[in-house]
Amino acid sequence: MSFPFSSVAIVGKYMDENALQQMQSDLTRLAHHLLQQGLHVCVEENTAKFIGYDGFVVTDLDRIGEKSDLVIVMGGDGTMLSVGRALRESAAPLVGINRGRLGFLTDLQTDNMLVELDKILAGEYQIESRMLLQSSVMRGESSIYHTVALNDVVIKSAVRLIELEVHVDGKFVSRQRADGLILSTPTGTTAYALSAGGPIMHPDLDAISIVPISPHTLSYRPVSVPAESTIEVTVVSATDAQINFDGQGQYPLLPGDRIRIARAAQKIQLLHPQSYCYFDMLRNKLNWG
Amino acid sequence: MSFPFSSVAIVGKYMDENALQQMQSDLTRLAHHLLQQGLHVCVEENTAKFIGYDGFVVTDLDRIGEKSDLVIVMGGDGTMLSVGRALRESAAPLVGINRGRLGFLTDLQTDNMLVELDKILAGEYQIESRMLLQSSVMRGESSIYHTVALNDVVIKSAVRLIELEVHVDGKFVSRQRADGLILSTPTGTTAYALSAGGPIMHPDLDAISIVPISPHTLSYRPVSVPAESTIEVTVVSATDAQINFDGQGQYPLLPGDRIRIARAAQKIQLLHPQSYCYFDMLRNKLNWG
Amino acid sequence: MSFPFSSVAIVGKYMDENALQQMQSDLTRLAHHLLQQGLHVCVEENTAKFIGYDGFVVTDLDRIGEKSDLVIVMGGDGTMLSVGRALRESAAPLVGINRGRLGFLTDLQTDNMLVELDKILAGEYQIESRMLLQSSVMRGESSIYHTVALNDVVIKSAVRLIELEVHVDGKFVSRQRADGLILSTPTGTTAYALSAGGPIMHPDLDAISIVPISPHTLSYRPVSVPAESTIEVTVVSATDAQINFDGQGQYPLLPGDRIRIARAAQKIQLLHPQSYCYFDMLRNKLNWG
Amino acid sequence: MSFPFSSVAIVGKYMDENALQQMQSDLTRLAHHLLQQGLHVCVEENTAKFIGYDGFVVTDLDRIGEKSDLVIVMGGDGTMLSVGRALRESAAPLVGINRGRLGFLTDLQTDNMLVELDKILAGEYQIESRMLLQSSVMRGESSIYHTVALNDVVIKSAVRLIELEVHVDGKFVSRQRADGLILSTPTGTTAYALSAGGPIMHPDLDAISIVPISPHTLSYRPVSVPAESTIEVTVVSATDAQINFDGQGQYPLLPGDRIRIARAAQKIQLLHPQSYCYFDMLRNKLNWG
Repeated sequence: MSFPFSSVAIVGKYMDENALQQMQSDLTRLAHHLLQQGLHVCVEENTAKFIGYDGFVVTDLDRIGEKSDLVIVMGGDGTMLSVGRALRESAAPLVGINRGRLGFLTDLQTDNMLVELDKILAGEYQIESRMLLQSSVMRGESSIYHTVALNDVVIKSAVRLIELEVHVDGKFVSRQRADGLILSTPTGTTAYALSAGGPIMHPDLDAISIVPISPHTLSYRPVSVPAESTIEVTVVSATDAQINFDGQGQYPLLPGDRIRIARAAQKIQLLHPQSYCYFDMLRNKLNWG
Repeated sequence: MSFPFSSVAIVGKYMDENALQQMQSDLTRLAHHLLQQGLHVCVEENTAKFIGYDGFVVTDLDRIGEKSDLVIVMGGDGTMLSVGRALRESAAPLVGINRGRLGFLTDLQTDNMLVELDKILAGEYQIESRMLLQSSVMRGESSIYHTVALNDVVIKSAVRLIELEVHVDGKFVSRQRADGLILSTPTGTTAYALSAGGPIMHPDLDAISIVPISPHTLSYRPVSVPAESTIEVTVVSATDAQINFDGQGQYPLLPGDRIRIARAAQKIQLLHPQSYCYFDMLRNKLNWG
Repeated sequence: MSFPFSSVAIVGKYMDENALQQMQSDLTRLAHHLLQQGLHVCVEENTAKFIGYDGFVVTDLDRIGEKSDLVIVMGGDGTMLSVGRALRESAAPLVGINRGRLGFLTDLQTDNMLVELDKILAGEYQIESRMLLQSSVMRGESSIYHTVALNDVVIKSAVRLIELEVHVDGKFVSRQRADGLILSTPTGTTAYALSAGGPIMHPDLDAISIVPISPHTLSYRPVSVPAESTIEVTVVSATDAQINFDGQGQYPLLPGDRIRIARAAQKIQLLHPQSYCYFDMLRNKLNWG
Repeated sequence: MSFPFSSVAIVGKYMDENALQQMQSDLTRLAHHLLQQGLHVCVEENTAKFIGYDGFVVTDLDRIGEKSDLVIVMGGDGTMLSVGRALRESAAPLVGINRGRLGFLTDLQTDNMLVELDKILAGEYQIESRMLLQSSVMRGESSIYHTVALNDVVIKSAVRLIELEVHVDGKFVSRQRADGLILSTPTGTTAYALSAGGPIMHPDLDAISIVPISPHTLSYRPVSVPAESTIEVTVVSATDAQINFDGQGQYPLLPGDRIRIARAAQKIQLLHPQSYCYFDMLRNKLNWG
């Protein structure tokens, strides 16, 4: 990342044309505001269909990190997660304008987005690194699937029950029947893992949270391990088992498959307004008021 | 039910040939012991393949209740659940010899089953009624699916998230996003509902327990309502939604489907040894020791 | 209870002079409105200090039920609980004007209380019975303390750990170490029992909820039993143990003490506006929105 | 710590004469075994009353770390906690022979203690550091109380409700009403914090777990923060509030008191047998089997 920013990218909720339609005027307003600041403006290709092409560099999501010093996302946490993963090889930080439900990751509101962005462009911001999880599925001797997640990796059955064996750094932890298992980054602990009874972990904590979903054994509770750990989950028995990541992609699993989960080498950079505070966000989103 | 018993039925884990194979000698021992007591012995047709046919009346599961005063099940809770449902139009009570994992419903152990059964045949037993839930799926104006459950009715998505609206006796209760929703009889509160964080309800309590599975809203907690209540669950949005009952059967649901759940008119009769105590069983199975 | 109401009582947050001071003008407005309707108005003695005495019958709380057909409480759930217990020998129903925090029991708001009360006085209301728990402490052969609770009876230690043995209808349920144990009516399941992880029980459910507080054994979970049950809790070991009821009164316990808890013979009557719905209240108070 | 060990200390459950009486023969057997190995044997002064004085150096607990290379504790986790705290200025590691209930900290069993200790004396062991929490109570400008904990610091009321405000590194986290709040080391996450619904944290995780006890706000959930954090808890309102540490000592608090909790500069050293595995211990103690 380099300040002052000279090239800024815009990404809307790119997989959803209806949503892009609804945010069209705000996206356009945003894009023209950035052009007026004399910035190079790069627009994700689906998003560009709703902003127009004049004056912008249009590119696909995977190359947006190369072309910009800052990526502005308009959407919900789901869009932030997929853009975040796409930016993992890039140094460009990410900031979100909330259009979704809860928005643990999107700090800005549409109403005053231009004022807030001007402050950020003037250098008033905080940068925060967030860890990613990488996972690979081993079938026999082959690694047949790889993925990276910003929130979580979930192993469960489409039907109901799954039996999983867990090892951490080669050490046997448990063999349990449950609805499934969540492996979560600190970022993901306010998402699915929280609904399943897991703890909240501050993003600065270098840890992975292992959260069983509706386990048969009532004393089988969430366990947090250091982020340096390698977790191996073996599918002992299941029907229609699958692994999914960030609630966005999935891959079918078979009994005997082993899933290796560890912290990814890359991190992503979140950019927050100067006034951002993690605990304020938490209190606000979780109605602790 | 009529005492003294003159006709007794035997049902093994009838859907699983391997299991029947393993329990063959115990089933045979049991059957011959009953014949020696001068009883009419009725055997479920799959079970009969492993006992032989000589001296027994062989029948299918659905008609076993008509032909017997007492039904002896050898298997786990799963077999008890399916035999229980099959017996719902019958007055014949059910007693279980445990061959499964936990066995909340199967009171007897194989080791001393003949001694225990002799006591029961001599009139030393307790009878207990257990309520059933009936549910029907309404699509538009049509009722397209009916089922009966002894443990629970579960509405969830094969993928991850489902949005459900719940009414009780026509009154709006909640509209929530979650992994799913469990509607449980008291019997079912020690099964899936317990894993999902629901309370234990004594079988004598006339109640239905509504237990959300990993709900987004953390304050959305299990709610118990009187057994006379009619619960209507509307599928607001979901991908690959399904209803299943007792973890044994399932039916696909579409957005807009309404599921009506209420106490069934029929009950089933569980027969316990004289020494049985619900709380002893609970303490034992849940390791409260 | 008799309709139309001819005599109506007013009770403010009677134990708290500061609170009475703050609600003085509202209490006065309320009292004069009732007088103008031609009703006999009875005022609780502490409350009367802030309303004046002219035109009112002043009485102590314990006799207020004899003198009125309807009791209007201005305060929070705490005041409702103590007035409720005081009215248990009376047929007069209770309605609350909320001045507290959450107000699961107080249906009316100060802003439009007169309009709402006029509807009630015109016969537009619902009446609902709520069960009470009675408990007595047995030390050796003597019963040394009695109490009645509308929400809950709690047995815990002032220090930290208590070991309690629980029997239901003479049957041994558990012997557990925990912070304490809550015995709750359905009304109380939205109060302390909910914070401790217990289920919500609809007020029409005839049940008692047994909720352990931070139990050592993780599988020791809330259990609901029929309201006809007699629960006996024995203090096995503890330092500074105490029993308290509705969070309002307490009594010290010694090891060996046995506490018998059962449904009280009396019930109290809650009066709700015609528009009241239990589930609306729940959704609203628990932020299920 | 220095290997090979030349001086070894023995501490029994030193605060409890009955317990010392019961473990007298095992303590004596242990002490003489160590003497026979040619080791200097140091005995805690209360423990010495039951072993005798001949051949031993007798010392008080606080000086035992100076005089030994290894401290052997016979007792439960409670004794381990207090001896651990006493050893915090010392480099001597601690190993436990279990005489208590659960024994998350005591690895050895009495039955084969001599065999196991011989292996340890031969150099077959693992050493593990465990963090401590230090806390100080600020009243006005003065620091009026200091303590160190190996498991947890707990702030609660002897009666029922306490209102606490929490800041982490000067940032406002929450203001909540609850039964209390637990600040736990990773070691403490299998103790009280687990009963209160907190997560298990691996001892290698540098974190502090903040676990509310029965909070009013249901979405107020356990939060884990980096071990470098300074947590400040302010008593907003309470009756008979107190702080206690490791469930063993306590100090009364007043409204307005601020408690500062942070990782202590010192650590303690746990010595485990070569075969020890944290997850085996967890699975075993929590009945995940």
